This record gives sequence, structure tokens and C-alpha cells, in this order.
Amino acid sequence: MTFRNGLDSLLRPEDSVLVMIDHQPYQLANVNSHDPQAVVNNTTALAKAAKVFNVPTILTSVIAGRGGLLFKHLTEVFPGQEVIDRTFINTWQDSKVVDAVKATGRKQLIIAGLWTEVCVAMPAIQAAGEGWDVTVITDASGGTSVEAHQVAIQRMIGAGINMMTWLAIAAEWQRDWAREETAAALTDVIIEHAGGSGIAYLWEQQLLNTPVQAASRVGL
Amino acid sequence: MTFRNGLDSLLRPEDSVLVMIDHQPYQLANVNSHDPQAVVNNTTALAKAAKVFNVPTILTSVIAGRGGLLFKHLTEVFPGQEVIDRTFINTWQDSKVVDAVKATGRKQLIIAGLWTEVCVAMPAIQAAGEGWDVTVITDASGGTSVEAHQVAIQRMIGAGINMMTWLAIAAEWQRDWAREETAAALTDVIIEHAGGSGIAYLWEQQLLNTPVQAASRVGL
Amino acid sequence: MTFRNGLDSLLRPEDSVLVMIDHQPYQLANVNSHDPQAVVNNTTALAKAAKVFNVPTILTSVIAGRGGLLFKHLTEVFPGQEVIDRTFINTWQDSKVVDAVKATGRKQLIIAGLWTEVCVAMPAIQAAGEGWDVTVITDASGGTSVEAHQVAIQRMIGAGINMMTWLAIAAEWQRDWAREETAAALTDVIIEHAGGSGIAYLWEQQLLNTPVQAASRVGL
Amino acid sequence: MTFRNGLDSLLRPEDSVLVMIDHQPYQLANVNSHDPQAVVNNTTALAKAAKVFNVPTILTSVIAGRGGLLFKHLTEVFPGQEVIDRTFINTWQDSKVVDAVKATGRKQLIIAGLWTEVCVAMPAIQAAGEGWDVTVITDASGGTSVEAHQVAIQRMIGAGINMMTWLAIAAEWQRDWAREETAAALTDVIIEHAGGSGIAYLWEQQLLNTPVQAASRVGL
Amino acid sequence: MTFRNGLDSLLRPEDSVLVMIDHQPYQLANVNSHDPQAVVNNTTALAKAAKVFNVPTILTSVIAGRGGLLFKHLTEVFPGQEVIDRTFINTWQDSKVVDAVKATGRKQLIIAGLWTEVCVAMPAIQAAGEGWDVTVITDASGGTSVEAHQVAIQRMIGAGINMMTWLAIAAEWQRDWAREETAAALTDVIIEHAGGSGIAYLWEQQLLNTPVQAASRVGL
Amino acid sequence: MTFRNGLDSLLRPEDSVLVMIDHQPYQLANVNSHDPQAVVNNTTALAKAAKVFNVPTILTSVIAGRGGLLFKHLTEVFPGQEVIDRTFINTWQDSKVVDAVKATGRKQLIIAGLWTEVCVAMPAIQAAGEGWDVTVITDASGGTSVEAHQVAIQRMIGAGINMMTWLAIAAEWQRDWAREETAAALTDVIIEHAGGSGIAYLWEQQLLNTPVQAASRVGL
Amino acid sequence: MTFRNGLDSLLRPEDSVLVMIDHQPYQLANVNSHDPQAVVNNTTALAKAAKVFNVPTILTSVIAGRGGLLFKHLTEVFPGQEVIDRTFINTWQDSKVVDAVKATGRKQLIIAGLWTEVCVAMPAIQAAGEGWDVTVITDASGGTSVEAHQVAIQRMIGAGINMMTWLAIAAEWQRDWAREETAAALTDVIIEHAGGSGIAYLWEQQLLNTPVQAASRVGL
Amino acid sequence: MTFRNGLDSLLRPEDSVLVMIDHQPYQLANVNSHDPQAVVNNTTALAKAAKVFNVPTILTSVIAGRGGLLFKHLTEVFPGQEVIDRTFINTWQDSKVVDAVKATGRKQLIIAGLWTEVCVAMPAIQAAGEGWDVTVITDASGGTSVEAHQVAIQRMIGAGINMMTWLAIAAEWQRDWAREETAAALTDVIIEHAGGSGIAYLWEQQLLNTPVQAASRVGL
Repeated sequence: MTFRNGLDSLLRPEDSVLVMIDHQPYQLANVNSHDPQAVVNNTTALAKAAKVFNVPTILTSVIAGRGGLLFKHLTEVFPGQEVIDRTFINTWQDSKVVDAVKATGRKQLIIAGLWTEVCVAMPAIQAAGEGWDVTVITDASGGTSVEAHQVAIQRMIGAGINMMTWLAIAAEWQRDWAREETAAALTDVIIEHAGGSGIAYLWEQQLLNTPVQAASRVGL
Repeated sequence: MTFRNGLDSLLRPEDSVLVMIDHQPYQLANVNSHDPQAVVNNTTALAKAAKVFNVPTILTSVIAGRGGLLFKHLTEVFPGQEVIDRTFINTWQDSKVVDAVKATGRKQLIIAGLWTEVCVAMPAIQAAGEGWDVTVITDASGGTSVEAHQVAIQRMIGAGINMMTWLAIAAEWQRDWAREETAAALTDVIIEHAGGSGIAYLWEQQLLNTPVQAASRVGL
Repeated sequence: MTFRNGLDSLLRPEDSVLVMIDHQPYQLANVNSHDPQAVVNNTTALAKAAKVFNVPTILTSVIAGRGGLLFKHLTEVFPGQEVIDRTFINTWQDSKVVDAVKATGRKQLIIAGLWTEVCVAMPAIQAAGEGWDVTVITDASGGTSVEAHQVAIQRMIGAGINMMTWLAIAAEWQRDWAREETAAALTDVIIEHAGGSGIAYLWEQQLLNTPVQAASRVGL
Repeated sequence: MTFRNGLDSLLRPEDSVLVMIDHQPYQLANVNSHDPQAVVNNTTALAKAAKVFNVPTILTSVIAGRGGLLFKHLTEVFPGQEVIDRTFINTWQDSKVVDAVKATGRKQLIIAGLWTEVCVAMPAIQAAGEGWDVTVITDASGGTSVEAHQVAIQRMIGAGINMMTWLAIAAEWQRDWAREETAAALTDVIIEHAGGSGIAYLWEQQLLNTPVQAASRVGL
Repeated sequence: MTFRNGLDSLLRPEDSVLVMIDHQPYQLANVNSHDPQAVVNNTTALAKAAKVFNVPTILTSVIAGRGGLLFKHLTEVFPGQEVIDRTFINTWQDSKVVDAVKATGRKQLIIAGLWTEVCVAMPAIQAAGEGWDVTVITDASGGTSVEAHQVAIQRMIGAGINMMTWLAIAAEWQRDWAREETAAALTDVIIEHAGGSGIAYLWEQQLLNTPVQAASRVGL
Repeated sequence: MTFRNGLDSLLRPEDSVLVMIDHQPYQLANVNSHDPQAVVNNTTALAKAAKVFNVPTILTSVIAGRGGLLFKHLTEVFPGQEVIDRTFINTWQDSKVVDAVKATGRKQLIIAGLWTEVCVAMPAIQAAGEGWDVTVITDASGGTSVEAHQVAIQRMIGAGINMMTWLAIAAEWQRDWAREETAAALTDVIIEHAGGSGIAYLWEQQLLNTPVQAASRVGL
Repeated sequence: MTFRNGLDSLLRPEDSVLVMIDHQPYQLANVNSHDPQAVVNNTTALAKAAKVFNVPTILTSVIAGRGGLLFKHLTEVFPGQEVIDRTFINTWQDSKVVDAVKATGRKQLIIAGLWTEVCVAMPAIQAAGEGWDVTVITDASGGTSVEAHQVAIQRMIGAGINMMTWLAIAAEWQRDWAREETAAALTDVIIEHAGGSGIAYLWEQQLLNTPVQAASRVGL
Repeated sequence: MTFRNGLDSLLRPEDSVLVMIDHQPYQLANVNSHDPQAVVNNTTALAKAAKVFNVPTILTSVIAGRGGLLFKHLTEVFPGQEVIDRTFINTWQDSKVVDAVKATGRKQLIIAGLWTEVCVAMPAIQAAGEGWDVTVITDASGGTSVEAHQVAIQRMIGAGINMMTWLAIAAEWQRDWAREETAAALTDVIIEHAGGSGIAYLWEQQLLNTPVQAASRVGL
């Protein structure tokens, strides 16, 4: 076991591949670790950020004919893209998904899904054992209880898996604001899905476009 | 003091008027009672619900040239509508806003704003003293601390003001699912802004549109 | 406004009538104020306690053909009993339910349901205004957020409604352990649904049935 | 009982008098309802705000020779002002303090102190009974436990006392940003003691003083 | 409804009577609102404080032969005193207890017990309706869940009952540190049961008994 | 130290053996890390899941004649099965239990018990040192405080032990919904003990068995 | 790095030595991670447990002439024992303490103290680097904030230090209830300091000494 | 991987270098893991402590012309010092900052910044991989959510980075109160920024300077 550090350990768009697992109604109905609206928001934001950086994204569901289709908020980010439906609970034992990931030729494997302790933990742990550099996005995932979510995170850390949150990976992919080809599109994602920063940005732009004048009060 | 109860005390679209106060960047930057993304989401949802039921909505800001324009998520719900800008911190001491409310002829006054303990509390308390039937939507508001938000709610209750949350008032305006003229539009608001229910609804529709067949497992 | 106190304000089985509202899958899918398993447990426990004391119980759902049937854990307590299905979100505007309650001739009206801020608040507030002595069982109810649940409770308190929890009302109905005709059946409910007390009771019974002997250690 | 509402119920600088009670080391050592640094910060901020609006402020301690002098952060706001030392735990039974308050001729009595459940609750409750319009600033106070603090607040609400937080009363005293004679000084208090807003204000001023130019990125 | 305020509303030793209800093992086994060690500590502290001020204290249990004797920590404060055992869950319907209270001739009735929502709420609500001035000590009580405890407190407030915590009532009984006949004994209670204050006191005494010398560092 | 990952590290029914330790009244009476009803529910659910997958389960208690028999909710899952009673607090130093585990020939050792920091931690740590692949089910265990529970979990992680929750292990045993021989029985466990998912499943089945028709509303 | 597991890794009285650091008034006055009464209680309980098992205990303070003597609750457990006073904040750089520990010839070094992040962390980390088998008792320690306490625990875990709580180590020292020479004395510690267990024990003893009889109710 | 322990692992002023990253308005506006006033307070305190011990401190911002200047509370600690402005989000990829750090010749690299999961995590992880001994000050940092902050801390621990809080590092730098050349200046920092300790210190000094006299009460 070695520490996971150094510049190479940071995530790069050109080496990343994202797998979104089972963001379906049946699963969301028993997520108790996060506010469900936040799960939908963060899931959509992660998918849009991946698209901004051209990170290939695999979408997969489990028996969608019964448990429901992936949230349309998510599938609408990738119009016309196939969703791989499985019977295996452990995504990494389904060859269609694994083949799709391998076809990208990338080794930084990023996973988010419902539930953290089941549909995220199993493929993440198996893939880590097979040599993938696995990162789980915890706030685009969710568990059946706070304890289930947190215990699963600790289990995955013990399996050598890296934990991040959606805004952190988006910023790590961007890395430098001088990379103008993605900065504007990422800004749009932040305005829509990271309210605290998006609205501060809109304010910044408004004020920068205001001619200089005297100003003396605190606008409570 | 009398109890606020009975069928008449429930909120009706035809008697309601909504005032949205100071949902601006300067204020959001120091909201510490709620997640800022949730404040933006709930604020937008409340505005859209008011629009579904034709509830007149007054938008107002305080010195927007400095503290920033209202969230565009909110103003885009009402394209072209004027936002009344004030210097008064207490909205109810600004005659432009009060006149706009009075012009609607309605007496069920609904208020949401930032911050709960300042920009919501003052007009709500003053208006209640002048005979208005005031309701505050707490989850489309926010304070500078959890304590500030909660203490302000208790102060307003002590002033005879009614407290609700956005999904509750939307359902109270709908009242009966047999009222089909608003049900579909309200559904769209819920799908976009109340993830836990919106996605359950999409699942419900998918399954109801699935031909009957044998089904025997739990889709974890 | 007068204080709600005195011996008469306590709940008695012979004056009580219980209405269980919308304990359905669509609603449970977006309960975020309580653990869903606890909602199912407490709902079932409340229903069983009512049965122990012969408190008439009305079961009602809203458009069950779409939003799902009442939890079977609940309906199985009352085999064969009709569930009144409604389109009205506000139960108290549905004459079938109100007539069923009035037919019991009782005035202590007890309500539990999903969600607290919608399907519980509206009928409770309306009925309180019409002179009913209304009690809401908060832990057999649930809201779409902690804030929604709590704000609704404060609104109902402001409407003169009494708040209780399921084990409290069960004990208040029992009132005296010398009332042996109900003590044994209530014990069974507690063993099944109030683990902390039920298992302490089983231990008490085991030890009381053990011949007296010396005992000197702390069994950690 | 009547509701406490209407424009007259809002706090005005010219009618306010502030009493700061027992912000001493012995008391702070067992404050467990708030972070002690926050108590010191909020207490100082409240005192400075009172000074901005010329609200007369009485400082009082209990047996300071043993329990320690008032925080110097607080006394330094009022250089040379006498601190009234008492043996009475209940400040309102000490004629020196009451006479000092009466000498101001004001009736909006504002109290903050340590501990909420002892040194704040007793005088607040007594004064309310003698006809004073009493407001307690909860976040410039603190109790020996969260429970003790909250229970005392509920007790005082039941005594007809108004609850606020320090930033709320400062904004209520200001009322209108067009009142320029106090706006600048209040701004300084906010910069020093309400970081979330103070730093947003400094940013606002910086940007308003920046010449207009093109700007296109989100500065994460 | 009138406010409960004014000097007369504060608690005085000579007008107080305390009833301690069902602090028994069966009840403690299902207290989930407080740490059980804290319940034992606070209960004992309240009893000792009552003894310091000669406040008559009635001890009562329910079917102690089965549910267990009162904590010995509590009974040992009053050696040889009878514990009134009941079958009634509602203490106020047991004439032995009510007669014992009436025999004291006092009207400030203080209650603590397990559980808050059952054994405290019923007698408190009934007695309040019969004209007693009732105070409940919440931190020497406890409920089967946080929700059950809090909902019961709100119900009792709605019945006109006063809420306090043990250290608050002890200080209110003392009222003035110049009352030397009780100060020393109360100090002993605080040293034993309110660590944060008791230990600060011991430090203070040590320092006051140290000859004056220069001191210039912060002893971290 | 190596990471615990790869497909082999996932749990399989045919390699698993479960030991349930000291789910007794004395222990439950001082569990303060979880709601006691949840402990009973999760414990029973884990036992039933083990039975579904034919995972051999050893039941053991410590001095049951004094501390009480295992919860009947648990023993009733295995009618007639012997419960091994011990004096050793550390189960793994009792040869009867260890021999029973060894007799199964399985190496994936799963442990749940009361209390996490005592009766779970000692055998888990010892067994891990002897080469067993140990997994602890945290939500079917419980400690005397939140801190004691969490510190024990960190200690066990430091001993190389795997942490999971009951629904996660049940899904990991199932692994693929195409394994029909266990899917139906697992569904029954989920309906009874994982309310959020069980009731969503019942809804799914109801809707799938509803003939297709037009549907257009949100059933709030 | 190797896992810390196996039978040898459990704590034994004959190999243990305990160091209690800076349980002084000055430090306690700014403990905000735990209730101070709980710190006093747990500290005393740990000391008494060590005494029961003849575990040598070193007591040490920092500049007690200014920051106050060790809590007398703690020193009274060891009448007449010297308290080593230091100027070094890091105990392990004071040769008097280290020599005293080495003189015991024991290698299982147990540390508790105030504050976790300062006076506990430094010696624990240094000693671990010098080959001691270090265990920290977190609930007999305390930090200046919850965050400071928790971050320090994570830092120490990263240094290879074992974390436990007081009741866990007491039980591990006892190991087997058949060891009668310490069982009774440990019982007394638990009755005094672990209310939830102590009172359950007293009940158990009472019931075991009650003649057999029929019993059929739940004593709420 | 080896444990990070031993005397050498403690932080020394002469080997430390501090980098303060992006404490700017845009970032603070979306900090949701800490109270913003506490972030400002802790950031300023850390900077002042570094100055007391002559620890070289690098200040850096990201596109300050848009996202705002560093808090003036921070820059005023180092009058006239250059702030290095970057476009790189990852500070460690900006050669100006890295060169400034290398120029100090020190290897104990201490980092604090906004946000924890972005501007702190990236340079800390990269530098750790390049052989620096990295420590992050968590309470002078902050993230966009509690989850983002905590997950980032876990990620950095997995990268071999040391976590501390501001008061802990200040005490570790001081190490021995006999080092009088820094003790007084550190005292001033504590009085201003660590209220619980600063005010206890002022009390200590006051009492030590009080002539010896009898004292017999507890000053509540």
C-alpha cells in the first residue's frame, strides 16, 4: 500500500471515464442519506461537467422496466445515448458495461450511483482490485441510511478507492482558468447547479460591467 | 388572540398575492441557515407555482445596483416584469410595493425573502399589524445563521403570522386533483424542483403505461 | 384563546376517533423528515393501539390507483375494512370521510398521515375551526423535509391543535395499569413496535420467573 | 394576550435601551450552547451597533471580584463607562440597574447576557411583567447547555418577550439605507463582526471601483 | 390567556413543591432523548437542590415491584422517605400523591419524570387545568425519542406550563449570593453535578488564595 | 498491509458464516448510538437474510440467566436452534462458539452484536489476527454512546476488518436478480424490514398489474 | 504498516500503564467537544477502573499554580499520590513523567487528557514513534472544538495509535466475568459512572431477589 | 507507507512555511461547511500565529481582479506583502508560489485555503507526492458543503497529509511555556481569537492579582 498522491494522482479529462449507475426511481425512493432534490441536482451537474470536458460517460440501469428509467434530468444531457440495462446488481460483473469502459482506453474510472453501499461499492471494489484507478463521487450517490452511506465510504477507502465530490472533480478537470475552451461551458453548469457560486458569479459580472461611481453603504 | 383555523384560513389562489423580497447575491452570500442551491431551487419553485395558479407576484430588491440583481432563475419566470428597487430595508415602508399589493385587492399576503430575520420579518410583522393575513414561506427564505432564522420564525409566529413551505402552499392552492386545469402545470414544477416526488411520478407514469405481465423480484 | 389543559383535555378511548390519511407509496417515496422504516413501524403501532382500545379508525387514500394502495402493514390490522379513496387533497372536504367520523359520535379527533404539511395540516386545521378537539400524531406522520414537517407542526399548534406521539397516546388511553382488559394486548403492541420497552418487559418477566438466588456481577 | 405586531412593534434607536449582563469569565467557562468565540464576537458586535445608533447601554456584572470582569472586548467599546456590580443574580432586583434604565426614559428594553436561563431569564421576565417591551438577543447570550438555552427561550416567549439576533436588530435600527448618518459606521461593524456580509461588501466596493472590461470566467 | 411573567412568576423556595415521577429502570431503559448518565446526574442534582432550599419533595413510582425501584442516587438524597407507589400512569389521578402535595400548602408545583410524554405530561396538564402554577424540569426528565420529548414539551407549553432546567431553578431559588445560609450547600451540589461551573469555582478559590505575583503567559 | 479489494473480497453466501452476539435486554438498555427499535429491526432483518441464503448462523449470549435471553424477534427466525451461553465477554475465547464456526468450513466471518465496542470488537479483532476474513454489520450492532460506537469502528478498521450494513450484505449475497431461487424470499425480508424499498416494490407490482390507461396528474 | 489485531493486541491489566494529563480547570473551561460534566465523570471512571485492576496511573499537570489543580474528583481516587507538575506542554518531553512510566516496565501505554489536540496528541505521537503501544481514551479527553477533537483523533490514528472509550477498556481489562476478584469493584464503578448500565444492574438485582409471581403488564 | 509519528513529526517554527490560498470573497460566498465569521477569525489567527513564530507566509489568490482581494483581515497582518495572483486553480502548478516556498528552505509545508476540496486538496496532494511534509489546517479552510469538506479531508489523509487545527499548531510551535520570547505575543492572539481561552486567561490574571481573602460562594 502506497499513498495516493503526486501530480499524476490528480484527475485529467483526457484520462477519465465516468460510469453513472442506477439513478432510478426505485432506488431514489429509499435514499435517506441526502435530500433527493440534491441527488438529482448533483447527478445532473456531474454529467454536464463530464460533457463539458468530453469525458466519455456510460449510463446503466438495473431492470429499468420495473425499477424505472434513469432520471430524465440525466438522460437528457446525452440525447439518444443508449442506457445499458442489467440484471446483475454488481455492474462490474456485466460484460457490456466493462467492455464499454475498456473501449475508451482510459484508466481513471469515476463512479457515481444509487445506492452507495450496493451499486457503487461492489463495482468500485472489484475494479480497484483489477488495477483501475477508481474515484467515487459521493454527493452524486446516496445510501439507504446515513450510516450505510458512510460505512460504505470507509469500506471503499479501505479498498484503495479515492473519494471526491462533484464540484471538486469539475475544478480538477478545469485545473487552470486560462483554459478558455471549457471555462465558459463550466460556468453555465455552475450557474445552474452550484447556486452559491453561480449567483456570486452573476453578481461579479454585473458589478464589473457597472461604470465606476461612489458607493458607501452595506446593502443588508 | 384567536386560533388561526377553519376552512377559511387555508390559502386559495384567488385570494393570494405573493411578494418575493431581496433574493439577491449580496444576501445569498451570507445565508447560513440553508444550502444556497436549495434556496435558489425553492425560490424558483415557489414563483413557478404562483404562476401556475395566476397568483399575482411582486418582485422587489434593495439597491440592486450594488447588492446585485434578483437571481435570474427567479426573474426568468416572469419575463419583462418590473422589479421594484428600494432603499428601505423594511419593504412595507416602501409605498411602491404596498400600492402594488393593494392594487390586487387580495388579502392573503404571502412573503418569502432573504434574510428571514431582516427583510422578511419587518414587512411581515408590520403588515400583520395592519390586518393582512400574512403567510411566510420559510424554505424559500434564509437567514444569516440557523439561530437567526429560527428565532425570527418564532418572533413572527408571536406576531400572528402563518408559516408554510413551498410544496405545502402549492398543494393547498391545488386542493383537489380533480381540478385538471392546473394539475398538469403543477406536475411540471414538481418534476423540476421536488425531485423525490417528481421522479416517483415519472416512474408511476412509466409503469401505468407498461402492459400487464408477470413480475416477481425486488429491483434493488 | 384558552389553554388546553385539565383532566378533560386528556384523551380517552371512548371519546376518540382516528383518521389515517395517505400512508401510500408515492408519499413515502418523498418523506425526508423521518426514516421510512420508522414511519411504517409507528403507523402500524398506532393502528394496533387504536384497535386494542376499540377506537374507531377511518382509513383513507388519495387516487390509490396511481399513487399506490395504503401500506399493507396498516390495512392488515383491519382485515376487510373499506379504504375511502379521494380526489380531494384536503380530506376534510371529502364528505365520505367526514360523515364516517361524525357517525362515530366522538369528538376527540386523532389524525396521522403523509405528508404532515399537506394531507395532515389541511384537515386538521379545518376540523379545528369547526369545533373538533384535534390531536395529530407526529411520529406516525412525515413531511417532505425536516423543515416542512416542523413548520407544519408549528402552524397546527397555532391553529389550536394538540401534538402527540404514538406511545404517548397509547399510554394515555391505558391511563391505569389496573385496567387489565387492555393491558395484555397493549403489551403485545409494545413488544412488537417499541423495542426499547418491549424487550425490557420480556427481560423483567424472565427474571421475575427465575427462583431467587445470589447474584454478584455486572453482566456487561 | 394580543399579538406583538404592527409598525410600532419594530425597534427604533430613539426608543431603545440595552442592558448587557454578566458577560464574565466564570459564566463563559460553562457556556455550552454556543461556541465561546462566537459569543464574544456577537456580544461585541451588539454593543458596537448600539453605540452607532446612540442607544444607551448599561453594563452590569455579578461579583466581578470573584467571577471576573466583563470581557474587555465589550468594555473597550465604552471607554471609562461604569460597570454596575451586583450580588443579586436577578438584575432587575438591583435598584442601581433599574434606576439607570428608567433614567433613559425609554421603553424598548433590550437584554443580552450569560446565562440565558438564569441571568437573562429572570430580569426579562420580571420587567415584562412590569410593562416593559422586552427583547432578548439570543446570539449575544448563552446557556449551560443547548437544552437550558432553548428551554429558557421558550419560557421567555411564554412571558411575552420578543426574541431577536444581533444582526437583525442592527438592521431594524437602520431601517432605511438612505439614512446615511449611521450607514457607514454600521458597515464597519459588519466588516469586523459579520464576516459573510462584510467581505461580500468589500468585494462589491472593489468591483464597483473597477473600470468596465470584458469578463468571461467563473473564478472558482 | 395571560402571560406568565413578573417577579411573582419567578420560583421561590418557600412557595415550591417538587414531585419526582417514575425515575425507574424500566423507563430509563427506553429513554432516547438524553444520555442516561446525564438523566441520573440531573435528577440527583435537582433533588439535592430542593433539599438545600427545604423544598418539600414527593417521590413516586409506578408498580416498582416490576418496573424497578427509583434510582438509589435519588432516594439516598432523602433517607427513609416513603416512595408512593401507584398503578395509575397519570400521577395526578392518584389521591395519595395529590393529597401529599396539597398538604404542603404550596402552589408552585414542579415536576420531573420519565417519560416526558407520558408520566410528566399527564399530571402537568391536569394540574394546570386545576389552577396550579406548574413548572417542568426538562433535563431531569426524558422521552422515548427526541421527537416524543419535544412534542410533549410543546403540548405542555400549550397547556400553560412553564419549562426550566435544573441549574436554572437552583439559581432562581438562590436568587442572591448574599443569602449565605444556602450558598455553601448549593456550591457543593454544583461541584458535584455541574462540572463546568463547579471546577471553575474550585480554580477561583485556589487562585484567590495565592499570594499576588506577576503572571504573563497563557497556560495552554 | 494490502488493500481489501477485487471480486474475491465481495461476500458470497456459500463462503459466509454469521455470528450474532449478545442481542440481550441488559445490553439494549444502554445502547445510545441507535434507536433501539431500529436495532431490533436490523438485527432481525440480518438474521432473516442469512436464512434466505442458507448462511449458517451462530447465536450466542452472555449469562442469559441474568442479562436476559436474546430478543425473541431474533430467536424466532431459527426455531429450536441452540443459543450458546458464555461467561467470556470475548466470544472468540469461548471454544464452543469458535468450534461451531470452524465446523462450517467457511472463512468469510460476519459479526453483529451489542455492544460494538465490547462484544463485537474483541472477537472481531482476535479473529482477524487469526486469519479470518471478518466483516462487521454496524447497523445490526450498537454501542453505549455514539462516540464508543464510532471509535470502535475505527479501531476495527485499523485491525483490517471490513464494515458493512445489513441491506448491503443482503444485496451482495444476491448479486444478480436473475438468481430467482432467492429473489422472492429476499423480497419478503425487504417488505417487512426495509420500508422505503419494500413499499416502493409493492407499488411497482400494483402498477405493473394495472391495465394501461391515460394518466395525467401528480398524486401529492 | 501492519494491522493492529490478534489476541495480543487486546489490553491486559498486567501490561497496562495509564497517564492522565492536565485535567485542570483552565483546560476544562474551554472544552467544547464534550459536556464538561461528562468529562469529569468519564475521567473519574477511568481512574477508578485503573485502580480496580491495579493499573499504575501517573497524574500530571501543567503549571498548576496558575491553571489550577487537577480535578479533586480525580486526585481523590489516589489519596496522597504525587502529581507531576510540568512546564512542557508536551508531556513526553518531561523526563520525570517518562521515567515514571518506564519504571513500571509495562508497554501498553494508555493516555487521556485535556486537550485532545494538544496535550494528548503530542505525547501520544512521540511515544508511538518510540515503540510504545499507545491507546487514547477519547471520552476521558476533550478538545477546544468538536472539529479540533476529531481532527486530532484522525491525526493520531495516522500515527498508529489505538482509540478506545472508558467503558470499553474497563470491560477489556475484566475480560471474563468469572474473574471474581475484580468484578464487584468494577460493578461499583459502573453504578456510579455508567448510569444506563449501573441502574439496569440494580434493577436486575432487585428482580432476582423478588419471589416468583405472575406478571402480565408493561409498566410504562 | 509508514506511520507518521515520533518527535520529528511534530511541527517546529524553524522548519515551517505557511501558504494561505484563495481566502477571497467569491470563495467565501459559497462556503457551507463552517460559519463564515469563524473562517475569517481562524484564518486571521493562523496568520498572526505564524507571524509570532517568524514562520514565512506566502499569500496567494486566484484572479483577484474578478473574484475579489484576499480578506483585508488577513492581508493587514502582513502590511505591504505581495499577494501572488494566479490563473492556475492548482497553486502547486504555479511556479511563482512554488519558488517562493522553496526559497525558504523549509520542508514542513502548511496549507490553508478556500475551498478545501479544490484549492487546498490539489496543491497538498501534489506537494505530498513530491516529498514535502504537508499539514492542512482544516478550521482555517472551508468547503462548498460539509460533505465536500469531509470527503476532501479523507482524500488528503489517504495521500499521506497531516490534518491539524489552528490552535493546535500554535501550541505545537510554542512547545514549552518557558520560551518567553514568543509567549506574550501568542497570548495576544489567543485573547483576540480564541475567546474561551483568552477570557479564561484574563480572569486568571485578574484573580492572581487579587489579595488573598475568604471566598465562599459559587458565582453563577
